[in-house]
Amino acid sequence: MDIKPQVPFTCAVRNLDIISLHDAVLPISNKEVFFNFSVYESIKIRDGAAVFLEDHLERLFESAARLEIAHSLSQADVAGMTSRLLAADHITHASLRVQLIGGDEPTLFLFPQQLPRYSDSMYREGVSVIAYRGERIMPEVKSNSLLLNYLAQREAGRHHALEALLITSGGLAVEGSRSNFFAVEGNRLITPGSGVLAGVTRKYILESAGKIGLDIAFEAPRVEDLYSGRFDELFISSTSMGAMPVSQVDDCTFPHVFPITHTLHKMVGDLEEAYVREHAPAR
Amino acid sequence: MDIKPQVPFTCAVRNLDIISLHDAVLPISNKEVFFNFSVYESIKIRDGAAVFLEDHLERLFESAARLEIAHSLSQADVAGMTSRLLAADHITHASLRVQLIGGDEPTLFLFPQQLPRYSDSMYREGVSVIAYRGERIMPEVKSNSLLLNYLAQREAGRHHALEALLITSGGLAVEGSRSNFFAVEGNRLITPGSGVLAGVTRKYILESAGKIGLDIAFEAPRVEDLYSGRFDELFISSTSMGAMPVSQVDDCTFPHVFPITHTLHKMVGDLEEAYVREHAPAR
Repeated sequence: MDIKPQVPFTCAVRNLDIISLHDAVLPISNKEVFFNFSVYESIKIRDGAAVFLEDHLERLFESAARLEIAHSLSQADVAGMTSRLLAADHITHASLRVQLIGGDEPTLFLFPQQLPRYSDSMYREGVSVIAYRGERIMPEVKSNSLLLNYLAQREAGRHHALEALLITSGGLAVEGSRSNFFAVEGNRLITPGSGVLAGVTRKYILESAGKIGLDIAFEAPRVEDLYSGRFDELFISSTSMGAMPVSQVDDCTFPHVFPITHTLHKMVGDLEEAYVREHAPAR
Repeated sequence: MDIKPQVPFTCAVRNLDIISLHDAVLPISNKEVFFNFSVYESIKIRDGAAVFLEDHLERLFESAARLEIAHSLSQADVAGMTSRLLAADHITHASLRVQLIGGDEPTLFLFPQQLPRYSDSMYREGVSVIAYRGERIMPEVKSNSLLLNYLAQREAGRHHALEALLITSGGLAVEGSRSNFFAVEGNRLITPGSGVLAGVTRKYILESAGKIGLDIAFEAPRVEDLYSGRFDELFISSTSMGAMPVSQVDDCTFPHVFPITHTLHKMVGDLEEAYVREHAPAR
């Protein structure tokens, strides 16, 4: 699938209005931005459809509820503004950022960004990741408390790795800086059941794993077990990448065979395509 | 000392320019703001002087260095822009926010806010604080990773408390959400020696404590010991409040006698006044 980047985007949403992207600004003195009191989603736009929109909005509102961000928006409001923005800017392929900033005047922003691209060879041969020590605050909430993620991604980049796995003080590999993390051992699919972000792609991977008869073990792999080659496959997942095989953790490389990762990636991709067929606007 | 609030402020600084405060805005899509990759200071402006400016700039640059924020500014640049802003807006009393946002185009902002006010009765009778479980990421860096601080302050407000003490998973009271924390036991002044923000007021409190013959114990009080009444005095410190006595932690209240806190508060206040006399612009 070859997608031409769409540039430039010109529109954004602030609350219930379509505005120019240039006007989507915040005063430097905004207290809630200063304090990261804000939640967000990144939604894939394909063929003009916001993929798994309902899942993302449910999680956005759940994140806001957990932080007790008071606001008067409904999920239907945000869905409606998403449709209006996609139509106003003729957006067919993008990553749509949805951000809800708390405070006395809670503010919703929607704005499009370029979709990240991943090459076929990354899916075929696997990618490199690093292990990065650090624990997020309220990891189950998709909040803007993201400094650890930024530092972890920067460190990954310095090692020419795609992602950094966050390792707890207890030595557990719980999730990536912008992905969920999975290990495969025999017929078992292993991933933490709590203390991580409830990824939308993770949800469909777990559903798909059940369909092909894998046993799900909700636990976090130990970082030493990643190095030892104990697992048959490792992969990370996100909205933008689906299920991406991992062939290297720090300096340890593994055989490049990922039958289960590839199967799950294909199944999630098929669900995504079915969603797009059902929801893409008429041409 | 009675200070009339100065309203409205009209100017700000972006990099090496004086701009209108209205133009001190950031695009919602700014990656580094989104990820809290930013460091800051809050500097007290009294009689037109930026109190302990050198200490604040040294810490700002140390914070930036620890996060590896690349930039081309010198401390003299920031000091120069501080003077220009104070003159341009005729600022005599304010809290000056200095914020350095990292990234490919690092950006410095300076802008004035109202100084918080604390009543004489708070200093006389002490204030109430709560204990709040949570650990900051890189607590020694004054970064914009502040969600925990926001949630802790909000919880304090719900209990009509002035501050929330952050309690580690090991049960240690390390610092407040926007202050350092001290306990007095006999002739010992107790405060953590690491893992907390190197407060400028804390530095002058420690210097003053040495001058009056207190022994400094660099350790973190256990939260149970706060409740038990084991300590003779508890206090918090910050640029805006100096040394503020604590008369209540959660539901436990203590005798309202704070001779050492009051002495240290007066000594730091004297240092501040001496600084202002030396640095206030001629009238």
